[in-house]
Amino acid sequence: MSSKSKMKLFTLNSNEPLAQEISEILETPLGKSSVIRFSDGEVQINIEESVRGHDVYLIQSTSQPVNEHLMELLIMIDAMKRASAKTINVVIPYYGYARQDRKARAREPITAKLIANLLEKAGISRVLTLDLHAPQIQGFFNVPVDQLLGVPILAEYYKKKDIEDVVVVAPDTSGLRRARRMANILDAPIAFVDKRRPEPNMAEVKNVVGSIEGKNAIIVDDMIDTAETVTQAAEALLENGVNDIYACGTHAVLSDPAVSKINESPIKELVITNSIFLPEEKQNEKITSLSVAPLLADALLRVQTEHSVSELFD
Amino acid sequence: MSSKSKMKLFTLNSNEPLAQEISEILETPLGKSSVIRFSDGEVQINIEESVRGHDVYLIQSTSQPVNEHLMELLIMIDAMKRASAKTINVVIPYYGYARQDRKARAREPITAKLIANLLEKAGISRVLTLDLHAPQIQGFFNVPVDQLLGVPILAEYYKKKDIEDVVVVAPDTSGLRRARRMANILDAPIAFVDKRRPEPNMAEVKNVVGSIEGKNAIIVDDMIDTAETVTQAAEALLENGVNDIYACGTHAVLSDPAVSKINESPIKELVITNSIFLPEEKQNEKITSLSVAPLLADALLRVQTEHSVSELFD
Amino acid sequence: MSSKSKMKLFTLNSNEPLAQEISEILETPLGKSSVIRFSDGEVQINIEESVRGHDVYLIQSTSQPVNEHLMELLIMIDAMKRASAKTINVVIPYYGYARQDRKARAREPITAKLIANLLEKAGISRVLTLDLHAPQIQGFFNVPVDQLLGVPILAEYYKKKDIEDVVVVAPDTSGLRRARRMANILDAPIAFVDKRRPEPNMAEVKNVVGSIEGKNAIIVDDMIDTAETVTQAAEALLENGVNDIYACGTHAVLSDPAVSKINESPIKELVITNSIFLPEEKQNEKITSLSVAPLLADALLRVQTEHSVSELFD
Amino acid sequence: MSSKSKMKLFTLNSNEPLAQEISEILETPLGKSSVIRFSDGEVQINIEESVRGHDVYLIQSTSQPVNEHLMELLIMIDAMKRASAKTINVVIPYYGYARQDRKARAREPITAKLIANLLEKAGISRVLTLDLHAPQIQGFFNVPVDQLLGVPILAEYYKKKDIEDVVVVAPDTSGLRRARRMANILDAPIAFVDKRRPEPNMAEVKNVVGSIEGKNAIIVDDMIDTAETVTQAAEALLENGVNDIYACGTHAVLSDPAVSKINESPIKELVITNSIFLPEEKQNEKITSLSVAPLLADALLRVQTEHSVSELFD
Amino acid sequence: MSSKSKMKLFTLNSNEPLAQEISEILETPLGKSSVIRFSDGEVQINIEESVRGHDVYLIQSTSQPVNEHLMELLIMIDAMKRASAKTINVVIPYYGYARQDRKARAREPITAKLIANLLEKAGISRVLTLDLHAPQIQGFFNVPVDQLLGVPILAEYYKKKDIEDVVVVAPDTSGLRRARRMANILDAPIAFVDKRRPEPNMAEVKNVVGSIEGKNAIIVDDMIDTAETVTQAAEALLENGVNDIYACGTHAVLSDPAVSKINESPIKELVITNSIFLPEEKQNEKITSLSVAPLLADALLRVQTEHSVSELFD
Amino acid sequence: MSSKSKMKLFTLNSNEPLAQEISEILETPLGKSSVIRFSDGEVQINIEESVRGHDVYLIQSTSQPVNEHLMELLIMIDAMKRASAKTINVVIPYYGYARQDRKARAREPITAKLIANLLEKAGISRVLTLDLHAPQIQGFFNVPVDQLLGVPILAEYYKKKDIEDVVVVAPDTSGLRRARRMANILDAPIAFVDKRRPEPNMAEVKNVVGSIEGKNAIIVDDMIDTAETVTQAAEALLENGVNDIYACGTHAVLSDPAVSKINESPIKELVITNSIFLPEEKQNEKITSLSVAPLLADALLRVQTEHSVSELFD
Repeated sequence: MSSKSKMKLFTLNSNEPLAQEISEILETPLGKSSVIRFSDGEVQINIEESVRGHDVYLIQSTSQPVNEHLMELLIMIDAMKRASAKTINVVIPYYGYARQDRKARAREPITAKLIANLLEKAGISRVLTLDLHAPQIQGFFNVPVDQLLGVPILAEYYKKKDIEDVVVVAPDTSGLRRARRMANILDAPIAFVDKRRPEPNMAEVKNVVGSIEGKNAIIVDDMIDTAETVTQAAEALLENGVNDIYACGTHAVLSDPAVSKINESPIKELVITNSIFLPEEKQNEKITSLSVAPLLADALLRVQTEHSVSELFD
Repeated sequence: MSSKSKMKLFTLNSNEPLAQEISEILETPLGKSSVIRFSDGEVQINIEESVRGHDVYLIQSTSQPVNEHLMELLIMIDAMKRASAKTINVVIPYYGYARQDRKARAREPITAKLIANLLEKAGISRVLTLDLHAPQIQGFFNVPVDQLLGVPILAEYYKKKDIEDVVVVAPDTSGLRRARRMANILDAPIAFVDKRRPEPNMAEVKNVVGSIEGKNAIIVDDMIDTAETVTQAAEALLENGVNDIYACGTHAVLSDPAVSKINESPIKELVITNSIFLPEEKQNEKITSLSVAPLLADALLRVQTEHSVSELFD
Repeated sequence: MSSKSKMKLFTLNSNEPLAQEISEILETPLGKSSVIRFSDGEVQINIEESVRGHDVYLIQSTSQPVNEHLMELLIMIDAMKRASAKTINVVIPYYGYARQDRKARAREPITAKLIANLLEKAGISRVLTLDLHAPQIQGFFNVPVDQLLGVPILAEYYKKKDIEDVVVVAPDTSGLRRARRMANILDAPIAFVDKRRPEPNMAEVKNVVGSIEGKNAIIVDDMIDTAETVTQAAEALLENGVNDIYACGTHAVLSDPAVSKINESPIKELVITNSIFLPEEKQNEKITSLSVAPLLADALLRVQTEHSVSELFD
Repeated sequence: MSSKSKMKLFTLNSNEPLAQEISEILETPLGKSSVIRFSDGEVQINIEESVRGHDVYLIQSTSQPVNEHLMELLIMIDAMKRASAKTINVVIPYYGYARQDRKARAREPITAKLIANLLEKAGISRVLTLDLHAPQIQGFFNVPVDQLLGVPILAEYYKKKDIEDVVVVAPDTSGLRRARRMANILDAPIAFVDKRRPEPNMAEVKNVVGSIEGKNAIIVDDMIDTAETVTQAAEALLENGVNDIYACGTHAVLSDPAVSKINESPIKELVITNSIFLPEEKQNEKITSLSVAPLLADALLRVQTEHSVSELFD
Repeated sequence: MSSKSKMKLFTLNSNEPLAQEISEILETPLGKSSVIRFSDGEVQINIEESVRGHDVYLIQSTSQPVNEHLMELLIMIDAMKRASAKTINVVIPYYGYARQDRKARAREPITAKLIANLLEKAGISRVLTLDLHAPQIQGFFNVPVDQLLGVPILAEYYKKKDIEDVVVVAPDTSGLRRARRMANILDAPIAFVDKRRPEPNMAEVKNVVGSIEGKNAIIVDDMIDTAETVTQAAEALLENGVNDIYACGTHAVLSDPAVSKINESPIKELVITNSIFLPEEKQNEKITSLSVAPLLADALLRVQTEHSVSELFD
Repeated sequence: MSSKSKMKLFTLNSNEPLAQEISEILETPLGKSSVIRFSDGEVQINIEESVRGHDVYLIQSTSQPVNEHLMELLIMIDAMKRASAKTINVVIPYYGYARQDRKARAREPITAKLIANLLEKAGISRVLTLDLHAPQIQGFFNVPVDQLLGVPILAEYYKKKDIEDVVVVAPDTSGLRRARRMANILDAPIAFVDKRRPEPNMAEVKNVVGSIEGKNAIIVDDMIDTAETVTQAAEALLENGVNDIYACGTHAVLSDPAVSKINESPIKELVITNSIFLPEEKQNEKITSLSVAPLLADALLRVQTEHSVSELFD
């Protein structure tokens, strides 16, 4: 029914190299379009080829500057809808605002849900994404969401690296499931870093729960933002007698001063993916980037040709 | 603007004693209504007093039989809407299907979201609930959700009990945050039970991660369903040298054979709440039930008189 | 455009034999899926083959236990939607709650409309159904509804049976239109049973309006629930000098004590269809069941291959 | 909460005298507004007083010319919504297009549902109406519908008239329920006129089913449109030995040539209500009009002051 | 994907000759359907061929009588939706109520938006239209709108006519953009007629702003309604020394007394299009009608075969 | 009903001084809240007082950086909705993206409509705004929009200044209506600047249409963005013999290099309002800013106390 000839890929501004890589794997050129900004900061979208009756795929991570990238995406969706695209599939390798996924305190917004609502209102048909901060975000949408996973890619890297005596470590109480999944692939035990504040106004104490002494630790998280969580975890591990410390995370947010913190930390290597574009000034010999383009390209092709995406999860 | 005189409480069939208790605390009688079943199993709702222009509060846990209780609630909402209630506030102490909150495998439904959609479509104005399985379920709704917490009630009980040398234990990798919250109140360390299957077709191995030897353990979970998780955790703790074992959970689902399992387990006492009605045959000297009626009544009154609910979280 | 190769049939739990029969007629196997119940009564759906880009047809009567069957259907729809089915067509041979189709008294729900709203919110594309209690229920939906008719199947049976001197009888004031339709096919006169209560607290009096003496009566209704309506009508007919009494109805709800009532009544034969699954304990030599599978199969095929369904009404 | 001082009544063009009568009973003046038509036929609405924060009641029957009256109503609703009315309550004494309430043949619209959708989309909060052609039309709406009944008003008239030996007659198979309701009030038996066409191209035969000889008949219908149904029924009654023939119906559509048909028929008196405005040229000594203004005014006041409307049904 | 064989054209009552012309150009017969009116004025639609799975195009100008034509269209859309049309494309050469596109005074409706909402609610997939009064009306829709332009057709006519020394004149302050567009094609200067009322209760004064003396003027407007605007502009031009005066407008509303006004005016020729059907009594040697059928037919074909419509704008 | 005591004002980041001024006029303090940015650029909203049951007014111009300011507003609306505010009224003195109000070319978005959709989806109850670029943008909303006007404020300034022999000039063909409105207040004639490009690749020619020689010109526009339009118009006026040149516009976008262009232009004085915050570096002796705070404050109070806003337009 739907065929590859009806597929059109478009990129917006957040991660053009990734879109380019996907385009090359699929042997499908990126659609001609431009996103410019007027002098007053308003976004102008120009779609320079017909999309009427086509299945369009818009590739955009809502990474920093998140509000700009999100508005680009919403405006592009509106343009595609009014240009009579048949389906509008948004490929969001990194879904921003994902940590605002619940009311943790009184009168908080649930911005991750708001954004799902905005995308649906603008007119999307489907979402493809990677490693949502919480898997429940799938349920924020009424359209189908295909969530791909970064952990297998990261784990595969470590398997090849063949580190001995590994323990997988969650850097806080919320990442245990992710750690368990990676540990299953690596056939390793797990541990986590537990933080508590004994009394108000006293410094936070970090305990490592689980036996790690003499082992090599891989800290795993879904995103590395300021790198505070992961570097503090590394310190705690070091104090508790761990040998080598590795860290990984799918999404390289790397807000300042993440890169310098990583450099000064006992972490030997940080492995990330290119779900977020890594500008040159953040690149670094301590940081290894793996590509998610083959995984995303495969998923896009399966969606377009109506084959099961679930096989990608095995 | 909104005053207590405009408030009407109604109960459905799942937990009438709790509704009655809330009604007594608020000194507001339960509205006259009946839920009967025709011989072919269809639900018939009769609302026997005018609700026109009133703020109605429908109290119903979607506990077992969940589909019956859910349909009762949806039909009641429809009746209230068509009877010109001003606002329809649903009080769902136990939100069923909450574990189906994401696509864990291919082609799974997200039933917890479906139900949020159904409730909104039927016509609710607001949700009051207690200890959602995942806090992200708040974001499944577009109407306001006020989520109350059971952990403080449970923790308060243990504080009074004054157990020495406590360690709070999460029975699996997903409950660490809850354990951390209780441990904060009790000023205690935490541990968790880690399960892994070394090879396919081999028995699952349970490790306790964290130091527990010689301590008294309180296992905490959000719901006790078949009690398999909590009793297996208890066994693992016992094998690892723990002294006394206590267990608690807000929601007493207690599906067969939970009660007999609890009885045969090394657990000394299971503390639960009355968010789900506990029928006599499940009552038991090992099981202690705490009432959430004062908490819910306070929240209802604050909502109706437009005072902040957030103070209940402190 | 749409072809038979893109069609996938699925059954849920209410009437698997009917689904199987349709599947055989269409030479299209039933899709692999399972509906199980957890120990706490929650429904779990597993769809075990890809439906991406397919037109799926879900066959489910919302018969007793109606709330269970309805929730199964809603959850399956959610799963299909999230699994990227192209269209979701629900085949509901018996539409439960159909008698709650209006506010007959103050503050009643209109449950038949609520359910239409729930099905649409869950994500259906179309409804195929049979003999709605009121044809206006079609208008409760915004999606297309194809309503098939059972009367021609029932009338055809009587034509072959070739009963002499027939009068078609509506068992109450609301079924006259249906009786007129059957009488047209059989070329027969009509009558109806009129009930009135002369004074409050006095017994209801039943009059037969129309001339029936010495004739053979066929009582026709859309559904036989407790069989009270039809057996009381039979008694009234007997008292008014009718010869043989037959009864028929499309939907065999047959709530207790319908079967024993039928057996003890002057009705010679009750003809029904398999729109609702008839369990063995309700089967009976006095009860004849006709299959609606050929009619439904034909309709499904026409929908899928985009041919007119209306020809089935001639 | 809501008080009479916040109520504003507005009339449109279809039935100003009825609106005026309601206004007088309620001692609430009609709001200043005008509905004019531009030379090209477009409707222009002017609301000449502030409605901000008020509960407005728009009185409009969608009687002939139905499309004009409907568009007037929809445009007025839009104007009220944008003018910040608090609630918009539409009072539709006669709901046009009500007979298009189901797909009777292939590819028919369900216009009565379409109109419900249009009214809701335009922005109504509630509907008050009288004697819907089918009560299921209530379910076409998601907002509350309060349906008042004309039969008690008509029956009361006949009770005062004190006709002897009455039989209530439904003029076709679809009006039996209405006839039964009137017969209950008058404590009378019922009959109906059954039409059948023995063979294609032969004239329709009309039988009276029920015993009527020597009695005085009251034919009851919900609306008198071309009067063909009611005058043909009268002829059939006359042929079957009835004495005096009366006819009544809530809604006096009276399309040509209804009035002359009535005049030439054996009907002694036609009783109707003023739900539809009766222009002078249709007024006639054979036609008696009863006012529904007191009933509607009472209902409006109860809605506005949040008292139960259901008591009006007793 | 979509092919011409899946296209079905239908006309309603407002402009059958135009529909016929489009049908002939496309070599696609008009679908069999009828729009009749019952004696009480209600519209009845009959679609006499299957549309299941087809892309239908409904051709209807919402010209006078606008409310009738609009309701015909809405009812037809409902019928098409319920008859399982795949897409419902409405072709509205003249979009009525377009001048009510904003709140110019307090408590005005925005009827042009209301109608967009009604069309979307009824179930349209797309709009094709011509020369909207304000281009912003496109944004009143969430479905795609393809707006074609009449100015190029009108300008082409004047180019062929080869009038010398042309000035294009906007008859009021709101039509300058349209005048500029035509002037670009004709390579001509522009002017406009400025109206002001020096003091309340004094006569309006008309000034021509721009140099026109000795030139030949072409007055351009989007619609010619009562012709007051255009004939008053012509008078003002005449008084200011213009030579020949021509006038044109896409939409020939021509409400009374437009035709006689034109005849008595100094306008030599009025050029219009057949977007609105021009009845014989309005035809006139001073009025020249150009056909928009080729333009619309081309656009329809491009939409159906998924080619770019934008090329039609060049 | 609604009273001033239920009103809560909140400001976001775009124009705090204006919000402060409104707050002072209304003697209602600004609600406690904060908008901060995480290191990765995500917006975090904290509402630090209860808003349950209150009517909140959020003051935010969607001025540069427009995407940041818009997202702040949307997130705040989500937070307010979930915090049970009774109504959420957004006060948008400057509505960004307003120029993207139609599809001017193929495949353009209609961003001004997209934003209306996003605001409504997020949960607004009403919009108060000032001088929309096109009045039709009111129709992009389904909620009430109260649009206030800046021209009377600007005109009043010039009236007091008492310039002689004024001509009001629209700087392009689209601003004539605005010029006419100001000219009415000042009792002055109008003119406009007409731009055309004689041939492709030739420079644009600017003609002044209307008689201006020897007069003093006031150029009026709705917004001054790069100031190119207004300064080019000034040049054209100068070349055509105008004396003094003034310019004004409600919205001071003033993108670079607007301020220096104004300074170098023949414009004597630019009058603007504070609908957009004017940072110190853009302030300038040639630029006069008038406050819209009294107008907005008056409108807010009328809305809250349910008095007519329309009187503000006189």
